[in-house]
Amino acid sequence: MKTKTAQARARNALYAQSGGVSAVINASACGVIETARKHPRRIGRVFAGRDGIIGALTENLIDLSHESPATIRALRHTPAGAFGSARFKLKSLEQNRTEYERLIEVFRAHDIGYFFYNGGNDSMDTAWKISQIGGALNYPVICVGIPKTVDNDLPITDCCPGFGSVAKYIAVSTLEGGLDVASMARTSTKVFVLEVMGRHAGWIAAAGGLAGRRAAEPPHIILFPEIVFDRARFLERVHKCVGDYGYCVIVVSEGARDPDGNFLAESGTRDAFGHAQLGGVGPVVANMVREALGYKYHWAVADYLQRSARHVASKTDVDQAYAVGKAAVEYALQGLNAVMPAIKRLSSKPYRWTLVPVPLSQVANVEKKVPRHFITADGFGITAACRRYLEPLIAGEDAPPYRDGLPQYVRIRGVAVRRRLKTDFKT
Amino acid sequence: MKTKTAQARARNALYAQSGGVSAVINASACGVIETARKHPRRIGRVFAGRDGIIGALTENLIDLSHESPATIRALRHTPAGAFGSARFKLKSLEQNRTEYERLIEVFRAHDIGYFFYNGGNDSMDTAWKISQIGGALNYPVICVGIPKTVDNDLPITDCCPGFGSVAKYIAVSTLEGGLDVASMARTSTKVFVLEVMGRHAGWIAAAGGLAGRRAAEPPHIILFPEIVFDRARFLERVHKCVGDYGYCVIVVSEGARDPDGNFLAESGTRDAFGHAQLGGVGPVVANMVREALGYKYHWAVADYLQRSARHVASKTDVDQAYAVGKAAVEYALQGLNAVMPAIKRLSSKPYRWTLVPVPLSQVANVEKKVPRHFITADGFGITAACRRYLEPLIAGEDAPPYRDGLPQYVRIRGVAVRRRLKTDFKT
Repeated sequence: MKTKTAQARARNALYAQSGGVSAVINASACGVIETARKHPRRIGRVFAGRDGIIGALTENLIDLSHESPATIRALRHTPAGAFGSARFKLKSLEQNRTEYERLIEVFRAHDIGYFFYNGGNDSMDTAWKISQIGGALNYPVICVGIPKTVDNDLPITDCCPGFGSVAKYIAVSTLEGGLDVASMARTSTKVFVLEVMGRHAGWIAAAGGLAGRRAAEPPHIILFPEIVFDRARFLERVHKCVGDYGYCVIVVSEGARDPDGNFLAESGTRDAFGHAQLGGVGPVVANMVREALGYKYHWAVADYLQRSARHVASKTDVDQAYAVGKAAVEYALQGLNAVMPAIKRLSSKPYRWTLVPVPLSQVANVEKKVPRHFITADGFGITAACRRYLEPLIAGEDAPPYRDGLPQYVRIRGVAVRRRLKTDFKT
Repeated sequence: MKTKTAQARARNALYAQSGGVSAVINASACGVIETARKHPRRIGRVFAGRDGIIGALTENLIDLSHESPATIRALRHTPAGAFGSARFKLKSLEQNRTEYERLIEVFRAHDIGYFFYNGGNDSMDTAWKISQIGGALNYPVICVGIPKTVDNDLPITDCCPGFGSVAKYIAVSTLEGGLDVASMARTSTKVFVLEVMGRHAGWIAAAGGLAGRRAAEPPHIILFPEIVFDRARFLERVHKCVGDYGYCVIVVSEGARDPDGNFLAESGTRDAFGHAQLGGVGPVVANMVREALGYKYHWAVADYLQRSARHVASKTDVDQAYAVGKAAVEYALQGLNAVMPAIKRLSSKPYRWTLVPVPLSQVANVEKKVPRHFITADGFGITAACRRYLEPLIAGEDAPPYRDGLPQYVRIRGVAVRRRLKTDFKT
């Protein structure tokens, strides 16, 4: 992976955020920037793409030299994407080579020798392609991917920064919501449904399982994307739960699918005009319970709240997010191109981990789902092995500073880098 | 209000929770129990009704003498109803005098000289009726109401314990969700809708307004139950927001109503069978935006998560919840019957408050809505006066203890009191 010798003069670095944001992606940015600032003889200025890769393509760069050390430090406790992120996947080299050439043109104009791309599967693919075309266009650039996805579906790495905090949010919310329902069930709501993110992998749904240790404790049912939804078995289980415990708490992944492979979310509800209502597997499942069993129900859809909930972030997650940002810069300074720092678990109790560089080509476009042995035989819960895996990831608290009752999240100044190219680029 | 002299011998106390639970109702229980335990010569045992007033009617009582001081102390940081709550409104004395007579019968059987009823409007009405019938049936009992409602709609008191914490949860969530949307809006979601509780009063929706101070900052639009929904004006504002800021964050109360007085939640959505879908003004509003303006949207419904979120409780709220429980016992020991401790604001900056006893008859069945001068002229935001009122209520943090990444909430042993009555009571 060491494709070139360490660069002799200081060159600039570009950092860009990609895809859905998280509670800790800015902690990775903090790790990148603070580490880069320690190496002024190797790394000149650090730029950020405004709105991620779109900023790089359109030469909309932010010069982070104008941000104070206090602002950069505060990124560690600030959720969402401080420089803007984008859902924008570059086409393949064959389909649109122009985009890659444009990136290299922007890099050349701003003497960018290091590119750090902070995202999930697609972004690791993009970073890999950029790492290859630099050589082809005779422009030396070191590309390092920084893992980020609340979905926790990147391969090789033990987990993905961003996941631990959403996992903690969902576990805490399931615990708290479960206590609420339990205390009211006699005369009020008997079934509570919490819809969580994870369209293709059930990691976030699995995290809800951390809220309870015994069968009687919520959640009583988890619906995973990995397990085909069986309406009859599900309703039977709900009925039994209400009989045994007086109530039933259900965590459902937005990715839960019926036997035909369709998302449950798309199966039921129509608005007044007959359009299929987008989103909302929570209400679909809750209505199903009401129609079949008649129980009073409530449902919650945490949506963006779960992935931006920095106020209840996992300390493990924050530490890892910072560490992968820091390691990315260190790898780059070692001349490692086309790699991503991956978290390697050394032990679960106590949780010990280290970082290792893995080739981007091995990470790109591979999706890690919840393995079958992490899901109980009946398909409705998590196993002890899953709990052992998940527990360390939500461990520890790292509360942001508060003022007047609210977390003090930082906003960057965001001073623009003066444009050098004469051409515009339409994305 | 001093209707009898202080009772000479120790008599037992009954505490019951009523209505929807909150993040801090157990803090009031903690205040009651810890204070009662300091007066063993006046108060014998403290019982709790299992599932609130239903436990009292059916003689299902919990003997709290068996709970350790550590358990009682931990109630202060444990959300929801530790003894069970109930949505059960006693009929009027004329309609069902039997229920009241039964209560007095249970009180007599267990020598209950003090009754503490922890709830909202309806419960204050019940407590008042019980306080009156005791005398009529020649059974001396002191009834004290303890305010609790996340809706913040009790009159006279500055605020209601339970509200400050849900207000903090909604303000924090609006802030965090708003940062998420802002960072993705260029290529993804442009409109984010957060549905909040408050069927009749918009206090919780108003709290969302604390997240931003400038017009550009979320939430850009709040929809109150107090302001008739005007579809055209709303959509125009959404359009302008997206034009001006690139995105639009909306906080909508479940109590928002159309010009005909119908809940918006009931206006749109039907399930596959054509039944009106219950709940969900969030998706209704989001779909409205999509149909009229075509923006990509997301919506969240916090539902029970907001009122059980002890992990992000307001310290002010926890302190007040404890204080009203403590004061209720002190009032009872002073012989004050048919009163409720009300919070009296002495100043806003710094927030100073004290407790005063108010007659239950003045509190019962009166609903306090958000006054018009707390809502901006356009009906979409909160005024400086509203902010001054709300800010102290979410101030301060009071994190629960954590273990293995999760809050350590307590469960009571719940030892049952031996029944003394031969008769059953069907509720």
